[in-house]
Amino acid sequence: MKRIAILGATGSIGVSALEVVAAFPEHFEVLALAAGRNVERLAEQVRRFRPQLVSVAGAEEAARLRGLLDGDVARGLEIVCGPSGPDAVAAHGGVELVLTAMVGVIGLAPTLVAIRRGIEVGIANKEPLVAAGALCTSEARRSGATLLPVDSEHNAIFQCLSGQRPEAVRRLILTCSGGPFRQTADLSTVTREQALKHPTWSMGPKITIDSATLMNKGLEVIEAHWLFGLPAAQIDVVLHPQSVIHSMVEYVDGSVLAQLGTPDMRVPIGFALGYPARLPLPIPRLDFARLAQLSFEAPDRARFPALDLAYEALRRGGTAPAVLNASNEVAVAAFLAGQLRFVAITELIARTLDAHTVQPTHELEVVIEADRWAREQAQTLLARGLGRP
Amino acid sequence: MKRIAILGATGSIGVSALEVVAAFPEHFEVLALAAGRNVERLAEQVRRFRPQLVSVAGAEEAARLRGLLDGDVARGLEIVCGPSGPDAVAAHGGVELVLTAMVGVIGLAPTLVAIRRGIEVGIANKEPLVAAGALCTSEARRSGATLLPVDSEHNAIFQCLSGQRPEAVRRLILTCSGGPFRQTADLSTVTREQALKHPTWSMGPKITIDSATLMNKGLEVIEAHWLFGLPAAQIDVVLHPQSVIHSMVEYVDGSVLAQLGTPDMRVPIGFALGYPARLPLPIPRLDFARLAQLSFEAPDRARFPALDLAYEALRRGGTAPAVLNASNEVAVAAFLAGQLRFVAITELIARTLDAHTVQPTHELEVVIEADRWAREQAQTLLARGLGRP
Repeated sequence: MKRIAILGATGSIGVSALEVVAAFPEHFEVLALAAGRNVERLAEQVRRFRPQLVSVAGAEEAARLRGLLDGDVARGLEIVCGPSGPDAVAAHGGVELVLTAMVGVIGLAPTLVAIRRGIEVGIANKEPLVAAGALCTSEARRSGATLLPVDSEHNAIFQCLSGQRPEAVRRLILTCSGGPFRQTADLSTVTREQALKHPTWSMGPKITIDSATLMNKGLEVIEAHWLFGLPAAQIDVVLHPQSVIHSMVEYVDGSVLAQLGTPDMRVPIGFALGYPARLPLPIPRLDFARLAQLSFEAPDRARFPALDLAYEALRRGGTAPAVLNASNEVAVAAFLAGQLRFVAITELIARTLDAHTVQPTHELEVVIEADRWAREQAQTLLARGLGRP
Repeated sequence: MKRIAILGATGSIGVSALEVVAAFPEHFEVLALAAGRNVERLAEQVRRFRPQLVSVAGAEEAARLRGLLDGDVARGLEIVCGPSGPDAVAAHGGVELVLTAMVGVIGLAPTLVAIRRGIEVGIANKEPLVAAGALCTSEARRSGATLLPVDSEHNAIFQCLSGQRPEAVRRLILTCSGGPFRQTADLSTVTREQALKHPTWSMGPKITIDSATLMNKGLEVIEAHWLFGLPAAQIDVVLHPQSVIHSMVEYVDGSVLAQLGTPDMRVPIGFALGYPARLPLPIPRLDFARLAQLSFEAPDRARFPALDLAYEALRRGGTAPAVLNASNEVAVAAFLAGQLRFVAITELIARTLDAHTVQPTHELEVVIEADRWAREQAQTLLARGLGRP
C-alpha cells in the first residue's frame, strides 16, 4: 500500500493516474490532491478516492467544491486554496509518493517541497526540471528523494538504465514522433486546430503545441540532462513517427537498450506509481507481427528551430533554460489564444533569450525572477506586434 | 585483469573472442585454449596470447602444434589431447571465466566442468544447455557459477532483464532474421550453397544451416527456457529480417525492453568477457537516421517445422531436447555432406523424436545415452535412404 498525493489531479496525467489507482485499490491510498478550477471533476475524484486534503485555485472554487460534496464526504476533508495550496498537498503528512502533474513552471515550488521531503517524486511536470534542474537535482541528492520520470521518453531511459553502470553509457537517444507537421513543408499557415492534432499521443493542449514545434523535445533534452547527469553532447534526438520505441540508451560496447510499447501514458504513470514493482496494467500488448514498420529520421532543425534553441539554452546554462521555458509558455498561450502565428512561437523565444543576461541558479528566487523577467519581456514583444496573425 | 580460457578457440566465436582480448590487453590474460584440428591457427594464437595450456584433438595434432612453435614459446606450454582435453582446459587453475564456444553437444562435459567450479561461464555453445539444461542450471545454482549467454538473442535478453524483478516478466520475445529462405515458397530444391548464405550474420556452418531451417531459433527457445527459467508458453519468436533488435522482454505493465545493435558477434562476446563492465568495443554505431525500416512478421510454422519440433521437445521434457539436438546434428552433417535434402532435415529429427521414449535427465549419463541413441537412430534412418537427394 503506497500513500500518494497528486499535483494536477484533474489534468490529463492526473486523471490517468487516478485510473491506474482505481485499477489497483489494494496498492494505493490517495491522501491529497491539488487541482485548479475544474471543481466538478475534483468533486468526483474526492467522492471516489476520499483524500484527506485537497487544494483548489481560490476561495470561490473552495466554496463551490464544498457545495458539490455530501455532508459525510465533506466532513473528513480539508480544503485549502491559493498559490500555496499545492505546497500543502506536497507537504501532507504520510504521503510516500508525490506525482507532480501540474502544467508549467508554476509546479516548481510544490515540486521542491516534495523533493525536500526525501520521498518518491513522480515527475510528469517537466518545466520545473527545465527551469530549475540544478536546484531540483541537488536538493534530491541532499534529501535522498527518488525522482521517477513520467514523461514517456525519460521513463523509457530510466528503464533502460536499470541495473547498468553509469560509466558505460555513451549517449541517450530521445525519440520524437515529429508531431503533426513532420511532413509539412510550409509552416507559415498552420492553424491552432491543426497543431492540436497529435499523430500518436493524446495529451493536454500545452504539451501538444510543444510537440508540434518540437520544443517539447527540446525541453526533454534539458530535462534528460538533469535527470541523468549527461552533457548536451551525449543527448541526441531521432524522429520515430510510430512512437513505438519511447527512447533508448546507447552503451560504450555498441549495445542499445530501448523501451517499447503501445503509446499510452498509463505505462509511465503506472511505472512511477508502482515503483519498484511493475503493475499488471490493462494495456493492449504490442503485437509485433501486426506492427507497422518502425522508421527513423533525423529531425529537420531548420523547420523546427526549437530544438537548437533548447540545446543553446542548455549550453548557456544558469537561468537560460528558465527563460526559454517561460517565454515558450507565453508564446504557446498566445498561439492558443489566436494572438501569435505558429512560426513566431520560436521567434518570440529566440528574441527573449537574446535579450537575457544569464545568471547562476543556486537559489529558487533567481529562477523565479528570471521566469518573471522572461514573461514580461515576451509580453512586451507580443504587445509590439511580434508574430501577430 | 580477468584470466580466461576458451573452449573452441579456433572457431568463429573463439577467433572473435581473441580479437576482443587483443583489443584490451590490459583487461585479459589467456590461460588456456581448447581447439580441435586447426593446428595452424592455434599455433598463431599461442604465439600471440601465450597460454599456459592448450588442448587439441589427438596426439598427431599435438606433435604438429609443437613442430610449429619456437622453442621458447613451446617451453612454457602444456599440450594435452584427446576427448578429455577440453575438460582440462575448463579445469585449468586460476581461470576466472571459461568461454564455451565448441560446436555441438560435445561441449557438454567441459561446460559442466566449468560450471562446477562456480566461476563465470560464457555460453556460446548452445547444445549443452539444450541437451542437458536441467543439469547445467542445477549445477550452476549449486556452485554459484554465473552463466553469461553469448548467443546474441540470449545476451540481449540478459541485458533487458538487468535490474528488473523476475516476477514482472510476462514473456521473452526471441527475434529471428528468418534466414536465407524467409521468402522462398518452395524449399524442396534448396542447395547447400544457398543454405550457407545467411542474410545478416556471419557464423560457422552448423549454426548457419540451423538458421536456414529455423532449428537454431528452436534450440534458442529451449536454451532461453533454461537460462531464464520461463515455461515454453512465455517464450515467443518473431521474425525481424533486419537483425537490428536482437531480442526483447515484455513486462506485465506492457513495457517491452529491447537490445539493439549492429549484427556483430563481438558485442555479446565482449559483454561476457567484460562482465559486469562494458568494453568500449570498436563497433560501428547504429545510425538511426540511416537505418532501414525495422519490420516484424510471424514465423511460417508450416514451411519451417523445426520451430514446432523444438517447442514439442521442450514440452515433452527429459531427454527429448537431447534427442532433438543430436538428431539435428546428424541431419545437418548429412545435409552439408550432400547426403540429405534440406526439407528432410526436420523429417529426420521428427522421425527420431517419435521413436524415442523420454527419460528424466538428473544425470549426465542419461543425457549422453539419449544423445548416442538418437545419433544411431538417425544414422539408421539415413542408411535406409530417408531424404536422400
